Amino acid sequence: MADSWVNPAERIGSDLHLDLNPEMAKGGGRRAALGRALREAIGSGRLAPGTRLPPYRSLAADLGLARNTVAETYGELVAEGWLVARQGSGTRVAPRAKPVGSPRVPKPMPARAEPPAHNLRQGLPDAASFPRTAWLAAARRALNAAPNDAFGPGDPRGRPELRRALAGYLSRARGVRTSPETIVVCSGVAPALRLLFGGKVLRGPLAVESYGLPFHRSILRAARVRTVPLTLDEHGARATELFALKGARATLLTPAHQFPTGGPLHPERRAAAVDWARGNEGVLLEDDYDGEFRYDREPVGSVQGLDPQRVVYLGSLSKSLSPALRLGWMVLPDHLVEPVLRVKGEREAWAGVTDQLTLADLIESGHYDRHIRRTRQRYRDRRDRLVALLARRAPHITLTGVAAGLHAVLSLPPGTERPVTRAAAWQHIAVDGLAGFRHPAASMPAHDGLVVGYAAPPDHGFEAALDALCGVLPPPPDRD
Amino acid sequence: MADSWVNPAERIGSDLHLDLNPEMAKGGGRRAALGRALREAIGSGRLAPGTRLPPYRSLAADLGLARNTVAETYGELVAEGWLVARQGSGTRVAPRAKPVGSPRVPKPMPARAEPPAHNLRQGLPDAASFPRTAWLAAARRALNAAPNDAFGPGDPRGRPELRRALAGYLSRARGVRTSPETIVVCSGVAPALRLLFGGKVLRGPLAVESYGLPFHRSILRAARVRTVPLTLDEHGARATELFALKGARATLLTPAHQFPTGGPLHPERRAAAVDWARGNEGVLLEDDYDGEFRYDREPVGSVQGLDPQRVVYLGSLSKSLSPALRLGWMVLPDHLVEPVLRVKGEREAWAGVTDQLTLADLIESGHYDRHIRRTRQRYRDRRDRLVALLARRAPHITLTGVAAGLHAVLSLPPGTERPVTRAAAWQHIAVDGLAGFRHPAASMPAHDGLVVGYAAPPDHGFEAALDALCGVLPPPPDRD
Repeated sequence: MADSWVNPAERIGSDLHLDLNPEMAKGGGRRAALGRALREAIGSGRLAPGTRLPPYRSLAADLGLARNTVAETYGELVAEGWLVARQGSGTRVAPRAKPVGSPRVPKPMPARAEPPAHNLRQGLPDAASFPRTAWLAAARRALNAAPNDAFGPGDPRGRPELRRALAGYLSRARGVRTSPETIVVCSGVAPALRLLFGGKVLRGPLAVESYGLPFHRSILRAARVRTVPLTLDEHGARATELFALKGARATLLTPAHQFPTGGPLHPERRAAAVDWARGNEGVLLEDDYDGEFRYDREPVGSVQGLDPQRVVYLGSLSKSLSPALRLGWMVLPDHLVEPVLRVKGEREAWAGVTDQLTLADLIESGHYDRHIRRTRQRYRDRRDRLVALLARRAPHITLTGVAAGLHAVLSLPPGTERPVTRAAAWQHIAVDGLAGFRHPAASMPAHDGLVVGYAAPPDHGFEAALDALCGVLPPPPDRD
Repeated sequence: MADSWVNPAERIGSDLHLDLNPEMAKGGGRRAALGRALREAIGSGRLAPGTRLPPYRSLAADLGLARNTVAETYGELVAEGWLVARQGSGTRVAPRAKPVGSPRVPKPMPARAEPPAHNLRQGLPDAASFPRTAWLAAARRALNAAPNDAFGPGDPRGRPELRRALAGYLSRARGVRTSPETIVVCSGVAPALRLLFGGKVLRGPLAVESYGLPFHRSILRAARVRTVPLTLDEHGARATELFALKGARATLLTPAHQFPTGGPLHPERRAAAVDWARGNEGVLLEDDYDGEFRYDREPVGSVQGLDPQRVVYLGSLSKSLSPALRLGWMVLPDHLVEPVLRVKGEREAWAGVTDQLTLADLIESGHYDRHIRRTRQRYRDRRDRLVALLARRAPHITLTGVAAGLHAVLSLPPGTERPVTRAAAWQHIAVDGLAGFRHPAASMPAHDGLVVGYAAPPDHGFEAALDALCGVLPPPPDRD
């Protein structure tokens, strides 16, 4: 067989070189290779619109292919619109299949921002801690045990195996009162907010904490939900302000560990928030984004346990395993289960079935708890190193919110946040100032500070990251 | 140690029985068990608001626990709002933590519809064919080879490994002209439409086929996109009608296999659609939902190959592997890549990283192609059995759209669709009539028919399902 098709001169222009070899190497046999070679030649403009192709038998002879192979390939390309075949005038390159640029190479994507030299951004767990072996073992057990219907269209509530495992885990570890029937699996807390408010299961106005995740606010804005900021102090959000907010229908709180300032919500305020919801047909959304990670005593249980019919409890794997898994859950009051499922719909399982089954096994087998314990220890060590280093290098700087979570807040003297974050950027330190988390309508006094995530940097780079951070902090005040 | 705590009479009411054993069995140690038992007793109302709890030391002695364990547990429950501690008056059940129903059992979900006796609904692959072993082997290779940053926050475009694998596969198998830079991973075709139109990357009015997926139309309606139906005939959608639709900005087509009527789009119409897009700054959306499954000749390549800068190519694993994986892709013209990523955002990777990495390996290792070939053979056999049985049992009924895909259309005499679908429902046969797919504004004549999915029924039930179907078809017309 010939391995190239050089210049069947008078018919298709003198510079055509139809080399089947590179296409053969991609597999699929000779016929597929011929099809690809022809498409490439037409697409790149080497075979111009209107050009007449050689009859089957000539091309077949030239290329050492069976006549049928060529005929079928022509037929395919006619069906696809590359070629046109007319009785009496043979097969030609379609007039419309004009080239879109000689071998079209799409513009490269604009480069993403350089990775920072030191990543102290909040919200990231340690990617190196992902328990690959345990995950794979759980996947093997789970996929082998799964019924066939797991690979069918799927239940919008999420797999029953996972809802059962989560009901047990959340009750045990987070004091959530639930059953598999009131859990709906989703792909994270932010998608849950989008579903609840974008799908009009819940409506605003929504009371939020004066400092919080800007990303959540932007989701709510996109859903046309007005947010009203609650004042924060050392005991968390002033829940009693809810009673004065006429018209508020829901409130979004981070009771276990206020994000980003770091304290747990005071017991009286937890009770007040529940009271408000009860007395005002309100809904309390509990964003339990890092509830497992409390270092100096047992984790604070959920507010949801106080009144499961008034609280929507939201959680995910983003801090405990990986944000790239896109797996989360809502624990819903009974009356919200159906509305949520209606909005979610049959086709929107969102979280893939393999991850759902795997997580169910990971929890039931005890490996999830083990992973939490191991990473909790690891993050506590990180936290201790951060506290110790700052006490030594910058004793004039107060560190708060260190009892829990994957980040701490470093309080700065008034007016210094902007210069410090600018200096950090110059030193390629990725770290957020408090200002970016502040609700635009917040009326409480603004505090200067940095939100320092300490989980993500690799071990070997952690010391250097902290050193770099200390280097951009304001000097101690002069003592006279 | 005591294994239950019976009636510490005068302090907490005479009928309290605090049994730690069931809670101990759930793990987490004694302290966790005590916390859960107390929460349960308060939550269920057995410990009424205001009830004074015994001092640490008495309860510790009663339960055979260390005093500190009880003290810490009380502290925890105070922090969570279950208990209040006041100097001089001991620890009491919080007045607000009122019971929400004696041991709260959420209402069971309304039962989902009974599974049908025979499932001939379109759109479902054979769940039993999911290649568990190959998938798990690919997951093992992929997760072990993945860099740590795969478990970091994730790239909104999708993992580079997957985009590379898809670029090769789609070019080879579907004639798509692309590179990893113009592919964006998502969770399916419907979510892609929601993102493109809901996120206002593309705008309506949108021309669609007169018969199509109602679910897609409802997504577009929710995004406030007006859809305008194109007439369908045996050559697919009449693309030339696009030129007369003043104001239309995009068109959504199923060129490889019109959904649900079943034919490929005629080459001249493929070209006309591309021409329209070129001349009118329009965008052609190509829903290639089952392009791999063509039985009697090579699959028809994509329209996208004719002009990658005018076509958005959409595909997913829903027909080839499982709809429960929620994994799909968009191949975008260069100028749409950035707008799509802006809407998708950093936090919305959607498809989990483990599935993305696994699919990349499955494709690169050749196992995906092997799976497609195996299932194609399987579905072709199914199709052949359907054709043969109908020819024998109901020769007066025409079957169309049998050359490809996972479903066929059974043409019914005018006026018989409603009675046939009703009879099917009585016989617990799940099968859709054509009417449900018709665009409400379609002006072409309506056809009576059934859309018969033949991939999903288990092997052992396929014959019976077809028998049942034949039983509800209209009898042959009388011959005089």
